[in-house]
Amino acid sequence: MNMEEVRAEFPVLEQLAYLNAGSIGPLAKRTAGAMAARLAAELEGGRGAIAQFLDVIEIRGRVRAALAATIHAPAEHVALTNSTSDGCALVLAGLGLGAGDEIVTTDVEHFGLLGPLGVSEARVRVANVRDRPAAEAFDVIRAEVGPRTRLLALSHIAWTTGHVLPVRELKEETGLPILVDGAQSVGAVPVRVEGFDFYTVSGQKWLCGPDAVGALYVADPEVLRIARPSYFAQDGFEADGSFTAREGTLRFDSGWIAPASLLGLEAALSGLPDWRFERAREMAALCRERLAARFDMVTEPDQATLVSWRAEGDAAEACVRAWEQGVVIRDLPGLGWLRASCGYWTSEGDIERLLSALA
Amino acid sequence: MNMEEVRAEFPVLEQLAYLNAGSIGPLAKRTAGAMAARLAAELEGGRGAIAQFLDVIEIRGRVRAALAATIHAPAEHVALTNSTSDGCALVLAGLGLGAGDEIVTTDVEHFGLLGPLGVSEARVRVANVRDRPAAEAFDVIRAEVGPRTRLLALSHIAWTTGHVLPVRELKEETGLPILVDGAQSVGAVPVRVEGFDFYTVSGQKWLCGPDAVGALYVADPEVLRIARPSYFAQDGFEADGSFTAREGTLRFDSGWIAPASLLGLEAALSGLPDWRFERAREMAALCRERLAARFDMVTEPDQATLVSWRAEGDAAEACVRAWEQGVVIRDLPGLGWLRASCGYWTSEGDIERLLSALA
Repeated sequence: MNMEEVRAEFPVLEQLAYLNAGSIGPLAKRTAGAMAARLAAELEGGRGAIAQFLDVIEIRGRVRAALAATIHAPAEHVALTNSTSDGCALVLAGLGLGAGDEIVTTDVEHFGLLGPLGVSEARVRVANVRDRPAAEAFDVIRAEVGPRTRLLALSHIAWTTGHVLPVRELKEETGLPILVDGAQSVGAVPVRVEGFDFYTVSGQKWLCGPDAVGALYVADPEVLRIARPSYFAQDGFEADGSFTAREGTLRFDSGWIAPASLLGLEAALSGLPDWRFERAREMAALCRERLAARFDMVTEPDQATLVSWRAEGDAAEACVRAWEQGVVIRDLPGLGWLRASCGYWTSEGDIERLLSALA
Repeated sequence: MNMEEVRAEFPVLEQLAYLNAGSIGPLAKRTAGAMAARLAAELEGGRGAIAQFLDVIEIRGRVRAALAATIHAPAEHVALTNSTSDGCALVLAGLGLGAGDEIVTTDVEHFGLLGPLGVSEARVRVANVRDRPAAEAFDVIRAEVGPRTRLLALSHIAWTTGHVLPVRELKEETGLPILVDGAQSVGAVPVRVEGFDFYTVSGQKWLCGPDAVGALYVADPEVLRIARPSYFAQDGFEADGSFTAREGTLRFDSGWIAPASLLGLEAALSGLPDWRFERAREMAALCRERLAARFDMVTEPDQATLVSWRAEGDAAEACVRAWEQGVVIRDLPGLGWLRASCGYWTSEGDIERLLSALA
């Protein structure tokens, strides 16, 4: 697939400079097509025959394998979830940390991770990396680790600064269990989860899947309690709710997902160009370079696919003005920052439209 | 809307005797149409502009109000969930019962409730109502209640026997907190949640909504800890994950739901015929009467809209044979029972087809 073919797959790009995959990605024709076809089939043929349920089980297996491939994990270590938030909640509830335990996180996390941390009984220690150079993150986070630390919980790529956080180095240095929020990494940059304990995947962002689909990688399912068993958690149960857990990480599947969403995600994950990561990186670099000539940048060079900068004036208003000119970016509430997301589908023209819209 | 118009709204009824709303309901044209229209709009116009997010918040409000109306609850006491299972899990995790506490349930519950009960630290006491007359259920369940009982957790209508359980009487008699699994009641029979503490709604069954949508009624949100905060749980948060809880039951919203699914559910809940409960009851009564002439019935007369009977021979095979003749029912694994679900859309012809398919 060449660039022209890629652009043609995403109709939204004909109308808009769509630079917000960090919130939610563009939809491809094949993705929407797979969803619409399933919906039409369900309208005519129903959703409730045994054969249809068995079919869904098979589809879940295929989507699990496809998601696992995006993070280079064995499929049996991947649970199907609704989101990164969902995955973080499963991990925190399953670890059941107590009042004497500590979790180390950073000040650039999304509420999808922070919420589950906040309701954990453990003490949360926050490393302040946001207003420091990216190169200092390792030392700042490492300094929060102590004898009571039971978990490191942080993003691979920060949704605000766009910086790559040293998750691999922290794991190797401390040997502690680590939960990596992969919302801004999977599909944006190459990801290999080997060596991590827990890693979340968002389906609807850089993977351009339907809303409310995601995954959770668990290296060792035995270390995690099944805190929220869905029907898929068990291979048999008693009248008092005691049950035999399913093999492997499949026991953490968080519940029923609409078959149309599963098929849409499968379509989104198929036929991706080999050159996607390289291209996304180039476009992000170009976007940053062009913005840096005019704005005070937040994101340093050589990070990932998010580019953030300090707005001149009100960020929310700048965002609305850009939208009125067909450019989709977002502001980062409370920070006065703006953020553009560049994917492999991004063109130089999109970046020029962004610059014009900010003039 | 008359019967002919209702039947025309559900294309699946032209092909199949669709008698499995107890698993998942038929889809109406208006429901699929609303979903397809949203999907097409997202394909062309994207999903990530601020205006679109604000639109989704408004849609969530409308759907919350529409779901609340189905159970005669104030909208601010209703959380949007993915399913009844999801709602049960939210309640059990939020109550945080301990090892000295007891929960009373029955032996006719679905794993969607049983799973969360099973992972609670509380002791689960199971009232054996399944093989007894419906009239004995109250005494049998009441007998399990003791000084340590902290929660009654059971279905309004049992998904296996089809019997109406005495949830109202149990609440009034004991005054104990009660979690009612409404998967087989909401949309099937008139439901008023006033007086109950927690009540779950499945959107995809008798309400004929899209997959993976539901609701949870909470009478007093202050008695429930927010065990799994989604982004919608808060009105502001700190870097360590501590947050200000949103007003009312909205804080229990379990996460992002695809806008197409919300709009599909809204369409499904609109324009329902006034005569729907009466008609569904009549059809269930007719279905039971016709089956009773040939089979050993499980479901007693004058229950709700599920009709179960003991299969002659292998139930799963009977179910497949029925499917081959265009009749969708289900078997109840481990019991050797078959179950037909009758809705207001069910015709006498559907019931005749069922009888023929079982010949």
